[in-house]
Amino acid sequence: MAEALNGLKRTNMCGDLRESHISNTITVMGWVQRKRNLGGLVFIDLRDRTGILQLVFGEEINKEAFEKADKVKPEYCLAVTGELVKRQSPNENLPTGLVEVKGENIKILSESETPPIYIKEGLDAAENIRLKYRYLDLRRPDMQKIFMIRSKTTKVVRDFLDENGFLEIETPMLTKSTPEGARDYLVPSRNYPGMFYALPQSPQLFKQLLMVSGYDKYFQLARCFRDEDLRANRQPEFTQIDIEMSFVEEDDVMAINEALIKKVFKEVVNEDVKLPIRRMKYKEAMSKYGSDKPDIRFGMEINDITSVVKDSEFVVFKSAIENGGSVRAIKVENAADMGRKKLDKFGEFVKTYRAKGLAWIACKEDGIKSPMAKFFNEQQMQEILDKVEAKTGDLVLIVADKDSITLQSLGALRLHVAKELEILKDNKEFNFVWITEFPLFDYSEEENRYIAAHHPFTMPMDEDLQYLESDPGRVRAKAYDIVLNGEELGGGSIRIHSSELQETMLKVLGFTQEKAWERFGFLLEAFKFGPPPHGGLAFGLDRMIMFLAGTDNIKDVIAFPKNQNAYCPMSEAPNMVDDKQLKELGITKAEVK
Amino acid sequence: MAEALNGLKRTNMCGDLRESHISNTITVMGWVQRKRNLGGLVFIDLRDRTGILQLVFGEEINKEAFEKADKVKPEYCLAVTGELVKRQSPNENLPTGLVEVKGENIKILSESETPPIYIKEGLDAAENIRLKYRYLDLRRPDMQKIFMIRSKTTKVVRDFLDENGFLEIETPMLTKSTPEGARDYLVPSRNYPGMFYALPQSPQLFKQLLMVSGYDKYFQLARCFRDEDLRANRQPEFTQIDIEMSFVEEDDVMAINEALIKKVFKEVVNEDVKLPIRRMKYKEAMSKYGSDKPDIRFGMEINDITSVVKDSEFVVFKSAIENGGSVRAIKVENAADMGRKKLDKFGEFVKTYRAKGLAWIACKEDGIKSPMAKFFNEQQMQEILDKVEAKTGDLVLIVADKDSITLQSLGALRLHVAKELEILKDNKEFNFVWITEFPLFDYSEEENRYIAAHHPFTMPMDEDLQYLESDPGRVRAKAYDIVLNGEELGGGSIRIHSSELQETMLKVLGFTQEKAWERFGFLLEAFKFGPPPHGGLAFGLDRMIMFLAGTDNIKDVIAFPKNQNAYCPMSEAPNMVDDKQLKELGITKAEVK
Repeated sequence: MAEALNGLKRTNMCGDLRESHISNTITVMGWVQRKRNLGGLVFIDLRDRTGILQLVFGEEINKEAFEKADKVKPEYCLAVTGELVKRQSPNENLPTGLVEVKGENIKILSESETPPIYIKEGLDAAENIRLKYRYLDLRRPDMQKIFMIRSKTTKVVRDFLDENGFLEIETPMLTKSTPEGARDYLVPSRNYPGMFYALPQSPQLFKQLLMVSGYDKYFQLARCFRDEDLRANRQPEFTQIDIEMSFVEEDDVMAINEALIKKVFKEVVNEDVKLPIRRMKYKEAMSKYGSDKPDIRFGMEINDITSVVKDSEFVVFKSAIENGGSVRAIKVENAADMGRKKLDKFGEFVKTYRAKGLAWIACKEDGIKSPMAKFFNEQQMQEILDKVEAKTGDLVLIVADKDSITLQSLGALRLHVAKELEILKDNKEFNFVWITEFPLFDYSEEENRYIAAHHPFTMPMDEDLQYLESDPGRVRAKAYDIVLNGEELGGGSIRIHSSELQETMLKVLGFTQEKAWERFGFLLEAFKFGPPPHGGLAFGLDRMIMFLAGTDNIKDVIAFPKNQNAYCPMSEAPNMVDDKQLKELGITKAEVK
Repeated sequence: MAEALNGLKRTNMCGDLRESHISNTITVMGWVQRKRNLGGLVFIDLRDRTGILQLVFGEEINKEAFEKADKVKPEYCLAVTGELVKRQSPNENLPTGLVEVKGENIKILSESETPPIYIKEGLDAAENIRLKYRYLDLRRPDMQKIFMIRSKTTKVVRDFLDENGFLEIETPMLTKSTPEGARDYLVPSRNYPGMFYALPQSPQLFKQLLMVSGYDKYFQLARCFRDEDLRANRQPEFTQIDIEMSFVEEDDVMAINEALIKKVFKEVVNEDVKLPIRRMKYKEAMSKYGSDKPDIRFGMEINDITSVVKDSEFVVFKSAIENGGSVRAIKVENAADMGRKKLDKFGEFVKTYRAKGLAWIACKEDGIKSPMAKFFNEQQMQEILDKVEAKTGDLVLIVADKDSITLQSLGALRLHVAKELEILKDNKEFNFVWITEFPLFDYSEEENRYIAAHHPFTMPMDEDLQYLESDPGRVRAKAYDIVLNGEELGGGSIRIHSSELQETMLKVLGFTQEKAWERFGFLLEAFKFGPPPHGGLAFGLDRMIMFLAGTDNIKDVIAFPKNQNAYCPMSEAPNMVDDKQLKELGITKAEVK
């Protein structure tokens, strides 16, 4: 039994009704959260996007409505009309808890089977069920809240950028496959059988061309695609707030984006972000936190203790130092009593980062305990503790190895220990930091060549330009990342805007001139016609929403996400297509081996 | 020679400077529109997104700057600092024409080769050149104006919908290939070799599911894709303003979208659209204008003259009527003197619409002229003229054939004649009309079955539901299109929200139950859980911008469009990809025959 609206209009949303509306005749429409029959009255909690409202039906109010109301079940979709009255037994937990509707008329707009997901706050179903019945999962109030936050955030972002003279310009989705990035999603062309478009990994080249075209300030909330194996917080398609500006240097780009962040966090979650946001050079981030996206909400920084242990006879330290490596330590306050079992686990943990092992010193009340104590005299031991400023009660954790390994493993251990000890448990802080002066290149052992650390269009720092061809590894970039609580929220750079420099850059990356022009000819050509200096930044919108909504699962902030295999259990995409379709595209399925 | 900004900041945009800024030291940055050396002074017109500003350099102002300025060429990118002064010889055609900058410092930020496209107002290059050097084409002020209009329009749309409680929610691009539409663009899956995603033709099913999920009011500026052979105003990817609402009927959807249109046209082009917008039933549109998107800025309606000619001996009319067809006419005012050659061309024109020929009557001062005069006596002739209300000086054009042919050919002829006679030449009107009560199905002679006229999710009109299976051809839909000056600007419908009715609909369209569930199972399943009544509408954003910007070429409103072969002459997409990439996707290129 489903009834039509037949001209019936909703007067109010459920969650908006208050005592000031009392004695109005109102019509609300929504879903049955629950129904109870108590003492000859039927009570229905009706839910819409804005909240829950109690409806009451009785024989004395309206017999027909009462009888119909008594038949409804959870998730039936209803339209109910009646007078708003003061509620007999107020519910202080509900914003509408002082009022209720006396149900004089009820329409059952549609019925519902028992849903496979319980529609209420809080998760209660396995992920595959949530994804299969996504339309029901999305009906849960906490999910609805997330998408209201998402919609509001994009509104605030657009308002801010518009006020600051940015134009939103759409760039193509059917683009050219380019190397030097993640794996592209391809789209076969029907007009050119055997040729392919690629879905964009970012609008990078198009936004730079818009600067060449004089658009001055561009932005776009751009869908981007990467066909990578999905880690926990990756999705095949994601959205970035993509920004580019002309006639600017690093400070200009960072300033406008700081102001954007301040605005968003204030408007969406009423959080005051203090400007300017702290800046930290890449080198400092690596040496103190072993990471280019340091979580600086807590200390436990990495200390280089090489100089104080360099004369010890401890062979582990000695050989690391002799091989050009270092000995580094973190101090964990008030953790001297940590059990042996946990310490062994930390040892296993750093091994996953290729460290050979973990040394430790526990500064207990009754003296120092350490498996390496026998290799150090009292003075040497004290020097180590002084270097890391350890006091009685503290624990020191030490790794000796190549620099890259000591830093990376201790950086990871630092986060791991903080999590184990629940250091950030009640921390509600949003702690931002800019990381600057990134290296322009990373050296790929695998490919035996330099690869672009950011992307091949990033401008080198002026003072390092001279080393671009002679010593690429020491060249720093005009690049900056914005990091929030240890996660990269966005990043950008000043771009190369010279055809010659861009060609040199591609040469260092191993492109022949021919290959460079084949792939990027339109950019190199464009730079011949008065390109302005320009730069920009892109924020990961999905990650920003995760912070604003307080979830650590990217699937919670994307309405219809894919699972770990890039599959949609709801719509069953990808699926088989007709051979006729493939024939038109000039492709065939390879034999499955 | 390219100089760096080195901390130099722009103080103003070129086009903003007025007499009130005089004696300020300002720094502007932009491109050289032209340079002249007159009487020992160098004048440069500098252009940015906002307009043009004159700069003057002289030995007495600053010798070094003067010498540098004398070397610049068109499209060099400059930064110039100096005092703003009153201009010696004002230029009244320029908003900044009363002022100029005394150039005290000039930086050449980058040089330019002679551009292959002349950068100024008005088109002057072949389309393939414009597309190849799109970044230069986009630098032309009239193109920049279009993208400023586009950015503003989307801002106004979003502001309006936000104010009215709509949430912007992103739906996936990697979706499921579904039938009953245009050809899909496919994306091969790496995780499931041999299977494919499809790029969305519209977010239709996702937005309906969001209604099932209780989001109540949704919108999205959604990129959509259709792999069709490209007609003049089609692009493989396009953007639609996609809107869906719950708990509504036709009038509700039409009302909010009228208000949206009013707002957009007011804010963007200062045009007052009078509400409510006129409504016309599909049947009336077809019989009066031979089109479901009638241009009602002018009359020249189609008249059915079957009844007055049914007794004539003119065999062309007679046989058409005997075969169940009709005789219809349009009256062209003051066109009785049209030459024979033109009338013959009109005859050829209607033949392209499968009409067998065109009859005509010219009401000249000296009497009636008509090739068919001999078949009609004076009274019969007068009856025809009375029926179409023709006066002396008018021309009557007549087609006799099957209804579908008389209507379609006269509808097209009506537009053709209006164009030939330049009836709309100086017409600046925006003439909107809603078309309602569309047929739910079209009969496809080709496929020998009914196909969905709108899409398979459209709700039939209540009074026609009874004929859904017995006589699909007579069922009208709860669908509505909004037509502007003879172009479809948008369209939508109230949707089916019952699993049973949706299954019946798919059955009428020729789906077996198995096939229906395979393709649309998730929608049919979702409708089991209290779906709300819902409906929506989508506007073609690109077409809306064409109207607002006054261009009839869709390529003018898309920043990086494709050509007629869905190819991008600038980036050279699509292109070849490595066989390694294809291998990972489980596809191979078919042999080229």
